[in-house]
Amino acid sequence: MSSVLGANNYGKAEVRLVRLVRDTAEHELTDLNVSVALAGDLDATHLTGDNSAVLPTDTQKNTVYAFAREHGVGEVEAFGLRLARHFVDSQPTITRARVDLQQFDWRRLGPHSFARTGEGVRTAAVTYDGARAWVVSGVDELVLLNSTGSEFQGYLTDRYTTLVPATDRILATAVKAEWRHDGDDVDWAASYRAARAALESAFVTTYSRSLQQTLHAMGAAVLDAAPGLAEVRLSLPNRHHFLVDLAPFGLDNPGEVFYAADRPYGLIEGTVVRAGAAAAPIAWSLTAS
Amino acid sequence: MSSVLGANNYGKAEVRLVRLVRDTAEHELTDLNVSVALAGDLDATHLTGDNSAVLPTDTQKNTVYAFAREHGVGEVEAFGLRLARHFVDSQPTITRARVDLQQFDWRRLGPHSFARTGEGVRTAAVTYDGARAWVVSGVDELVLLNSTGSEFQGYLTDRYTTLVPATDRILATAVKAEWRHDGDDVDWAASYRAARAALESAFVTTYSRSLQQTLHAMGAAVLDAAPGLAEVRLSLPNRHHFLVDLAPFGLDNPGEVFYAADRPYGLIEGTVVRAGAAAAPIAWSLTAS
Amino acid sequence: MSSVLGANNYGKAEVRLVRLVRDTAEHELTDLNVSVALAGDLDATHLTGDNSAVLPTDTQKNTVYAFAREHGVGEVEAFGLRLARHFVDSQPTITRARVDLQQFDWRRLGPHSFARTGEGVRTAAVTYDGARAWVVSGVDELVLLNSTGSEFQGYLTDRYTTLVPATDRILATAVKAEWRHDGDDVDWAASYRAARAALESAFVTTYSRSLQQTLHAMGAAVLDAAPGLAEVRLSLPNRHHFLVDLAPFGLDNPGEVFYAADRPYGLIEGTVVRAGAAAAPIAWSLTAS
Amino acid sequence: MSSVLGANNYGKAEVRLVRLVRDTAEHELTDLNVSVALAGDLDATHLTGDNSAVLPTDTQKNTVYAFAREHGVGEVEAFGLRLARHFVDSQPTITRARVDLQQFDWRRLGPHSFARTGEGVRTAAVTYDGARAWVVSGVDELVLLNSTGSEFQGYLTDRYTTLVPATDRILATAVKAEWRHDGDDVDWAASYRAARAALESAFVTTYSRSLQQTLHAMGAAVLDAAPGLAEVRLSLPNRHHFLVDLAPFGLDNPGEVFYAADRPYGLIEGTVVRAGAAAAPIAWSLTAS
Repeated sequence: MSSVLGANNYGKAEVRLVRLVRDTAEHELTDLNVSVALAGDLDATHLTGDNSAVLPTDTQKNTVYAFAREHGVGEVEAFGLRLARHFVDSQPTITRARVDLQQFDWRRLGPHSFARTGEGVRTAAVTYDGARAWVVSGVDELVLLNSTGSEFQGYLTDRYTTLVPATDRILATAVKAEWRHDGDDVDWAASYRAARAALESAFVTTYSRSLQQTLHAMGAAVLDAAPGLAEVRLSLPNRHHFLVDLAPFGLDNPGEVFYAADRPYGLIEGTVVRAGAAAAPIAWSLTAS
Repeated sequence: MSSVLGANNYGKAEVRLVRLVRDTAEHELTDLNVSVALAGDLDATHLTGDNSAVLPTDTQKNTVYAFAREHGVGEVEAFGLRLARHFVDSQPTITRARVDLQQFDWRRLGPHSFARTGEGVRTAAVTYDGARAWVVSGVDELVLLNSTGSEFQGYLTDRYTTLVPATDRILATAVKAEWRHDGDDVDWAASYRAARAALESAFVTTYSRSLQQTLHAMGAAVLDAAPGLAEVRLSLPNRHHFLVDLAPFGLDNPGEVFYAADRPYGLIEGTVVRAGAAAAPIAWSLTAS
Repeated sequence: MSSVLGANNYGKAEVRLVRLVRDTAEHELTDLNVSVALAGDLDATHLTGDNSAVLPTDTQKNTVYAFAREHGVGEVEAFGLRLARHFVDSQPTITRARVDLQQFDWRRLGPHSFARTGEGVRTAAVTYDGARAWVVSGVDELVLLNSTGSEFQGYLTDRYTTLVPATDRILATAVKAEWRHDGDDVDWAASYRAARAALESAFVTTYSRSLQQTLHAMGAAVLDAAPGLAEVRLSLPNRHHFLVDLAPFGLDNPGEVFYAADRPYGLIEGTVVRAGAAAAPIAWSLTAS
Repeated sequence: MSSVLGANNYGKAEVRLVRLVRDTAEHELTDLNVSVALAGDLDATHLTGDNSAVLPTDTQKNTVYAFAREHGVGEVEAFGLRLARHFVDSQPTITRARVDLQQFDWRRLGPHSFARTGEGVRTAAVTYDGARAWVVSGVDELVLLNSTGSEFQGYLTDRYTTLVPATDRILATAVKAEWRHDGDDVDWAASYRAARAALESAFVTTYSRSLQQTLHAMGAAVLDAAPGLAEVRLSLPNRHHFLVDLAPFGLDNPGEVFYAADRPYGLIEGTVVRAGAAAAPIAWSLTAS
């Protein structure tokens, strides 16, 4: 056989952890979904089934829960850093670790009572290679809509173009944004608040000639708001709201009644980088070279 | 063939409607998912394919959009009443209509900007038979959690019981609640606010010996808060949060670290009725007799 | 407070059970999702939190797994009957039980190897009240499509009608069908095969003037094929496939290129009953009176 | 502002296309989900909202449908190549295109009748840069299970390890596999059949000491079976089936009764490369450099 093993990683995905802090009159609640991926000296398990270099994914799960007790959780980036460093530093066969975290938000209803909100999920991805760590923070599923202040005109046309230019349309998207930090000693909570506020503010205040323009404005605003960031990546589905043709019923429709479509949708993806910042592929993919 | 046609209905499901009000400095946004079901003199289409009594589901969809323009939307119950009455009153072959509505909540970010929240979906179900209407309001996917104040003890045991009594557990659920109004001339917005506040307050303030007890407290609180209601139905999944055993790692776990499980889950369903209120099966099922 | 407790039930939902039979050269695999709901003398737990009449949902889950070992699974209807009878017959406080089962199909790839198929899910719902049992079998998520042999014409029109009559359309649906047995001593496997074959055959061979007509033909065919059945209930979403208008590109579209829409969709629901069969509401709802 | 625009792309995602061939006695049905992503000279739309270089995503959608009529669909790889080449070759501002396709399988029930199967989804991803094209074929959501012939032992242990070595376990996964072709002039149907058969056969016949070993065997088998392939990437969730402890009920459980868990799950990802094959990052990411 003439094949060779290439890039690979393994780990436990979607460990659901709820951590309470109960030693105060008001309980604190942290609700996470944690995924671990490890890479290293793993040829033997692939080629012969010799697992002597493999830290079981079950152990990874146990470690997530044990660390939540031993060290608390705190900010997701800090929890991810602690876990990623542990796996690499404690196991000679593991040379790289990535920890992906989703944090679900709850609103306080009382000292021991909470309601889960759904206005976006906070995310973090931490990668560590034994020498340094890369931290990416983000938000996902943040659904935003502008009811005016958006147009789309002046585009290319060809034989297959039927789109009518829009001078005033609904602009709606479900923001997935991730921003890469320069370092790993950061006030994570403050940084998240600043970046998220910048995203929302840029969406609200940008007069949009295309969703690409809005994307760029959002990314640039995040970099402006948080000096410690090197790069912002955004993925913005264009959730089409089509004006319903009411003319057959003798009615006009001056931008009031819309059909919210599921599929297809536009998908706009882009990166905004701080001038002069070095690239860091490993921050985005555990197996990047 | 010795078979006969039984109960039946048909309609257009999940019409996604976004309605803007734009004639004010601050736009208003209403985001709905509307489903219509009709019943009546429909034997012919089933038995011979003669469709002369069938109002197409496509027409039902058009009507939803046209009414949103002609009359506005307003409160979901009112919009549902208008639609249900229209279908029955305008078509001799249609004798019953049911309109189900889901309303997705958005938070204002600016005069023309909104963020979708996810803290429960407001619902309504309106049924009309040509003579009177029944209105059921509700909330769905409202995820609540108490971090203490919940126990579960003193239950039946048998050969298959291994559960250890819980003296202090997390109680978490995704509330689906529906409440039936006595009449159809109601301040729907005020009623919804009162019912929902009562649900949440009862969940927060009830010391819970079982999720059934909490369910009953929530239903009774809704009836207390809104005198015009006849009946409340609740469906409460018990979203188990299992205390992780950290003893193998030399750690205790005094109610701090939990595994949030997906499946299986408990499911507690019950009805609380105002004393003396008449039952109304048709309010819950278009084809009830 | 002037409220009273109404109909209620509780149980463990979505117990995922995989059962192997390994004492043969070829292993057998049964893959189930089992939900239990119990009703009975449950006022105390609702009103005071006295749980002495409550068999915990955890015990119900244990029972599902233990019975799978003690008695094997066999046909889903038989497994459901065994469980439902056990809960009522062994617990004086439980007077009614319902067991819902979904069976996922796997295709054999080898003596110990399987691939999961997705061509419909077999279902069963068993209800028992201490005196007799009702069994409903069914299939869900069975996606069928006819590429011709379907029209929709001659329907009612009103001010809001824009639909153009269709003389040759795609007819596609995801069948949910349930059929109620007269008794509980049945060759469940043979009955399922006959009912399902009848459903598919009727869909394929019926020239359809409406999806209602197809629904009725499918229900009647099931009753014809299986004499021990009393009633068939069908829920058929009309999964619209819209002919794409290619005229702007100088192309015709003679029924060849379609857009498969997600929402909205038509929803056709109906019952076909054997002439003279008695109704059995409890077979469909644990809390029916 | 000190930020610069980095990698970006845009396009229409999830165009649902159903294509019939009707000029034969037996109709043919092709059911696709098509996503287009384009990159090129797109700075202006991001920076100033000048859209003169932007081919609208609506036009991309129209092109998918028009090409399905003009040229037919055929094999998904060929359809993707035609589309990708069109966008780049016809638009000077577009320098790279990627077309992702999912094909849903239907089983013939009659000359004009079909049932959708769910045993895996065929996929293809075609990338074109104006000079050459890269084609990746694959399968997704192919759920496989071995009921014996799998163990997991001899792994690393640390303070957090509690896993008991398994000498005979269920091995279940939902295969996502993608294989990269050397060229773009291939018998796509034959290649797909060969690759998929090799995947399944390797899963069935490999005695597994780890899911990593099975992954490698599957990848190597695909390369062996199809000489025109350069690389195989696999992502294999380890869908845990836990043996239920029945001892509390006085029952043993000799590998017969399992709980199929949802989360967490293991996730094993790896690449198998033909010795000497050159890497091709662009085949996997439109914006790779």
